[in-house]
Amino acid sequence: LDSGALSSIRRMLNGLQPTAIAHLLESSPPQRRVVLWELVDKDQEGEVIQELADNVRAQLLSDMDSSDLAAMTEELEADNVADILQTLPDAVIQEVLAAMSTQNRERVESILSYEEDTAGGLMDPDVITVRPDLTLDVVLRYLRRHEELPHSTYYLVVVNRKDIFLGLLPILKVLTSDPNMTVREVMDTDVTALHFSMPDKEVAKLFEQHDWVMAPVIDDEQRVLGRITIDDVVDVIREGADHSLMSMAGLEEDADTFASVAKTAPRRAIWLGINLLTAIIASSVINLFQGTIDKVVALAVLMPIVASMGGVAGSQTLTVVIRGMALGHIGRANLSWLLSREFQIGLFNGLIWAALMAGVAGWWFNDTTIAGIIAAAMVINLIFAALAGALLPIILKAMRIDPALAGGVALTTVTDVVGFSAFLGLATYFYA
Amino acid sequence: LDSGALSSIRRMLNGLQPTAIAHLLESSPPQRRVVLWELVDKDQEGEVIQELADNVRAQLLSDMDSSDLAAMTEELEADNVADILQTLPDAVIQEVLAAMSTQNRERVESILSYEEDTAGGLMDPDVITVRPDLTLDVVLRYLRRHEELPHSTYYLVVVNRKDIFLGLLPILKVLTSDPNMTVREVMDTDVTALHFSMPDKEVAKLFEQHDWVMAPVIDDEQRVLGRITIDDVVDVIREGADHSLMSMAGLEEDADTFASVAKTAPRRAIWLGINLLTAIIASSVINLFQGTIDKVVALAVLMPIVASMGGVAGSQTLTVVIRGMALGHIGRANLSWLLSREFQIGLFNGLIWAALMAGVAGWWFNDTTIAGIIAAAMVINLIFAALAGALLPIILKAMRIDPALAGGVALTTVTDVVGFSAFLGLATYFYA
Repeated sequence: LDSGALSSIRRMLNGLQPTAIAHLLESSPPQRRVVLWELVDKDQEGEVIQELADNVRAQLLSDMDSSDLAAMTEELEADNVADILQTLPDAVIQEVLAAMSTQNRERVESILSYEEDTAGGLMDPDVITVRPDLTLDVVLRYLRRHEELPHSTYYLVVVNRKDIFLGLLPILKVLTSDPNMTVREVMDTDVTALHFSMPDKEVAKLFEQHDWVMAPVIDDEQRVLGRITIDDVVDVIREGADHSLMSMAGLEEDADTFASVAKTAPRRAIWLGINLLTAIIASSVINLFQGTIDKVVALAVLMPIVASMGGVAGSQTLTVVIRGMALGHIGRANLSWLLSREFQIGLFNGLIWAALMAGVAGWWFNDTTIAGIIAAAMVINLIFAALAGALLPIILKAMRIDPALAGGVALTTVTDVVGFSAFLGLATYFYA
Repeated sequence: LDSGALSSIRRMLNGLQPTAIAHLLESSPPQRRVVLWELVDKDQEGEVIQELADNVRAQLLSDMDSSDLAAMTEELEADNVADILQTLPDAVIQEVLAAMSTQNRERVESILSYEEDTAGGLMDPDVITVRPDLTLDVVLRYLRRHEELPHSTYYLVVVNRKDIFLGLLPILKVLTSDPNMTVREVMDTDVTALHFSMPDKEVAKLFEQHDWVMAPVIDDEQRVLGRITIDDVVDVIREGADHSLMSMAGLEEDADTFASVAKTAPRRAIWLGINLLTAIIASSVINLFQGTIDKVVALAVLMPIVASMGGVAGSQTLTVVIRGMALGHIGRANLSWLLSREFQIGLFNGLIWAALMAGVAGWWFNDTTIAGIIAAAMVINLIFAALAGALLPIILKAMRIDPALAGGVALTTVTDVVGFSAFLGLATYFYA
């Protein structure tokens, strides 16, 4: 690229909004990404970096020195700065903090002291609190003294002298109520404050259920520490959804579509290795029946069908149950209902497709015995698949293993082993 | 249940918040759901029903008559009423509308005239507009005349005499700016108004990228029709994520964890039928090599391993690409980079696990030929799997088929056919 082209690219790039620049960076392979990042104006860098997915952000930050990092984060909100720092190694975080102004450092440090995936980690300490005995008129005048209010200040947090949480005062009520009324008379008290240790997924669920835009965060003594706003929660929802999708394919949250081969290949390799092990287990089941296959080679042709149908039917159940568990729908009270439903669906679908497959196999190999065997094996495998799909996520969760991550492989092992055993076992019995 | 127990359940149930009642209904099997619904107080019904997932809602509404439905929706916002009605048959919608008050009917009808999955369908017509030449003081007095402002009115929409959109006036700025300034001086003009026909997924993407809490909706002439608020967008995000997850398992959005057997079984059956067809195709490939398997029965034992590894590797690529496409990361400019990366990962993982598998197979069957054959077949299949995983979603999308829904089955067909052909084909060559 000559310098003329480069400077016109630079102009174009910096004419975009920070979110658009972030999207462009995320849509670029790693090397092109570095070149583009060099072209972003210094005063846009902070805005752009806070919009980036974690992995992409980590790639770009790894080349910057700590004073540049500190300068870049100067204009950002403390919670976003903490977010950005959390992707860096500890030593670098300390350097960046040292290079920040005292006030900013303290704010950011207070957030970094909470676990990243809790209410404390999500929260913004920048919150406007008021006392319950003030009149709305005084509150209005107090607000007017601010040149700019913290972003999304749609509620003021009402606290007593000891900073203990009392309620929320909606800005809209401040506007529409009689200015002589007190905060206490107008505030909402049937609201929930979130403990700083609450997992971020719980926080997201509450925001979704109650259509909140803001919620206060408190400590053990009910003292107000900060607030969480809907924009941060939307990111949690998005990441949670992403996590399920990626886990189901054994991908462990690789949020960067364009991660390098060196990063991606080893992570995927692990999952393939686990699958290889389970596939060998399934094959060793087939190995037990070598003699039967040697006699009736058509069995080798048909056996993958039995396993494949079990795998698909099981993963349908698995997905429904994993999603139901994530939504908190499934508990002891309704598990037996669910198992009975899945059993019935397995039986129904088993019978339908077994009948069809018996017809196909009978016609294909001109052998009614093999037709009966494949039909029986399919019914057996689809019922096992349904029960395994329903029970495996619950068992895995009890073992503290993420069902979305391990469920698929565990299920395929069951459906392969049951499918091959049933089909080849029955065949051995009838052809022996 | 005796009547004493029933009335204490009723008291407990109605002591819960509407969202909690909705969650309980969603977590109950269909019959228990109907019993619980009977116990919900009339004046809670509307609040509860608007919190329910579509399918659960449809089940409960199907037993209510139209005057009850009209009464139930009286207290709800027009956009939520429209949402609820959209799950009913057209004839019932007309009856409910006829039973509503004129004002409510007109509002709801105006929303129903837009497609459900567009900005128009999401929007709430209840929007406060102001003229640019007013002073903030006048705006404040105007707001104060409302007893209650429409929910989430964090921005006022600035329009001219012809209702043409001019900008947004943040409530927080009304509070903190000099009351003598005009709306025009304070309003944000670098904001986007959404055309009513914009797909809801696009709307959600914009809200996420820009951290919006509210956006105005306009018609072809830029006239303001209403507004979309973040709570409705969060539902779209959640449903979109759900859709991907469920589709990948061939489940076509069955949002009810406890849907009946009669509803669930036929829907799942279709997908199993399609899978049966593709499994038969894969088996007919094996059938071509009956002679070879008859000679070397170990091939029947090992062939599922080749197919299984291809399936897992391919679905890893498939998921990354489907997610990247949904996020708008993947286009012509970076497709060749992506294909090359996936090829390299396929080669890398193919070589590693092929080497290991060659060792296992060689030791297992004490046969170096079969070790070499399975290794070669695995490398070939993992490379094909990677390319198919990357290209299939793009091809399917070009054919207007949802890649999340059809991608998995299409991919498995490729990896099974390639896996069996490569493994048994090589074996035929070497053992012939």
